[in-house]
Amino acid sequence: MDGASLAKRIVDEAAAKAAEISRRTGTSPCLATVLVGEDPASATYVRMKRARCAKAGIQSRHIGLPATTTTAELIDTLADLSSDPEVHGILLQHPCGPHIDERAAFESIAPEKDVDGVTMHSFAAMSFALPGFVSCTPGGIMRLLEAYDVELAGKHAVVVGRSAILGKPAGMLLLAKDATVTYCHSRTTDLSAVVREADVVVAAVGRPRLIRGEDIKPGAVVIDAGYNPGNVGDVDYDTALTRARLITPVPGGVGPMTIAVLLAQTVEAAANQLGMQHR
Amino acid sequence: MDGASLAKRIVDEAAAKAAEISRRTGTSPCLATVLVGEDPASATYVRMKRARCAKAGIQSRHIGLPATTTTAELIDTLADLSSDPEVHGILLQHPCGPHIDERAAFESIAPEKDVDGVTMHSFAAMSFALPGFVSCTPGGIMRLLEAYDVELAGKHAVVVGRSAILGKPAGMLLLAKDATVTYCHSRTTDLSAVVREADVVVAAVGRPRLIRGEDIKPGAVVIDAGYNPGNVGDVDYDTALTRARLITPVPGGVGPMTIAVLLAQTVEAAANQLGMQHR
Repeated sequence: MDGASLAKRIVDEAAAKAAEISRRTGTSPCLATVLVGEDPASATYVRMKRARCAKAGIQSRHIGLPATTTTAELIDTLADLSSDPEVHGILLQHPCGPHIDERAAFESIAPEKDVDGVTMHSFAAMSFALPGFVSCTPGGIMRLLEAYDVELAGKHAVVVGRSAILGKPAGMLLLAKDATVTYCHSRTTDLSAVVREADVVVAAVGRPRLIRGEDIKPGAVVIDAGYNPGNVGDVDYDTALTRARLITPVPGGVGPMTIAVLLAQTVEAAANQLGMQHR
Repeated sequence: MDGASLAKRIVDEAAAKAAEISRRTGTSPCLATVLVGEDPASATYVRMKRARCAKAGIQSRHIGLPATTTTAELIDTLADLSSDPEVHGILLQHPCGPHIDERAAFESIAPEKDVDGVTMHSFAAMSFALPGFVSCTPGGIMRLLEAYDVELAGKHAVVVGRSAILGKPAGMLLLAKDATVTYCHSRTTDLSAVVREADVVVAAVGRPRLIRGEDIKPGAVVIDAGYNPGNVGDVDYDTALTRARLITPVPGGVGPMTIAVLLAQTVEAAANQLGMQHR
């Protein structure tokens, strides 16, 4: 499954819509990015996201906070951005470091600006199929499945991983599409046995080649949301490729979709906040 | 599994704590019950809950609204109760009728008074193992499993049903206890095959005897949260009984636990709001 191409289409659409918003309202969509500390990898991610915004005609405003920032200070910053009419979306790059209460920080992002889909409100909205922003990676996965016409109703989807922004919401979105959903994780007794039953496998743990290719049911659809050092996913790609009907490569599968969904949701947030009709 | 006895113990504990709160603060815990319309079954449920409150030394304040109440009026009522310092917990009896936006109504209940566990915040808190109130029936199920020392870590729990206040939160609570969790529902292709793999079955759909006794794995634990006309659960009890290690009867299993959790959470809410140390 070609995430790179699909992501490009989504970003092109977001750029067109951003241009339309600017033309009709005189205001460009604006994403605020917040980074605590100087972790080089995090800084790179933020730079990359801002560069993609710029290319799509989305403004961005970066707030770099020192590593000594307290949770209360971070919350103040995010609350200010939440009430700032010039900011339409907010991205808190995480992890923020061990001294920050990340959940409290996320919760100070207004749901209507939560374009990264990290708040409790967004999670519940995904779980109950209510309007709201989705977590970007699960959202990207769902768009991939949709683009490739993968039937989900009644199919058995196995989600390996249960993080708050990836595994858990991915399972809830699959459930909303009427899949029978199984959550596996580090404490699952016989992962291979569960994976062997899966029509759709979503690997989202960050453990290189945890999913053995020979456990993939012939004809299954495999989504590898893992991204490990050396461009290795959570699935043993070469063996899985011989059995899966569809599979996402790493890189070029889920990764590009995540940023595409972030941009699309930023534009959508701007349209909502600027009173433009949802199209 | 004897839900009636366990529920009695929980209610006795709640009553003792309610008495302690009254003694130390001069204020009794108070549950507000809100009912829209005159549905006899709903009225009976509310009466029963208020009677249990009274027996446990919990005050209750009933607000009966006419069937013609609009969503906006209901929201006003719930918002008033949310900011009323004399009310510690709020129960909106549902279903409220087709003309009410029930989700919007639930969301006007302050999370710290959401002793019935119906808000999006409470759902996300359950999902992320954060402090908060649980939905009462799933909370009752978890207390039953705990009381009977049912090991969950690494076990396969199958939840049949995916409602916002029963199936979905039950699965999330089981996942938080490290079970491998599968959600089944009306669109699941081969329910029997999934149930046959389950170490723990939670039936929560409200379809009489949907779960066949012969599908229960020998030694499995069966929780029947279904309650259908004629005191029939979602599980074919007589056959399941011969195979299950533990099983809840209907009635006398999950049912009494639901009200017990409601009372316990009302007392806990009062203790929190009155500034008493959590014990």
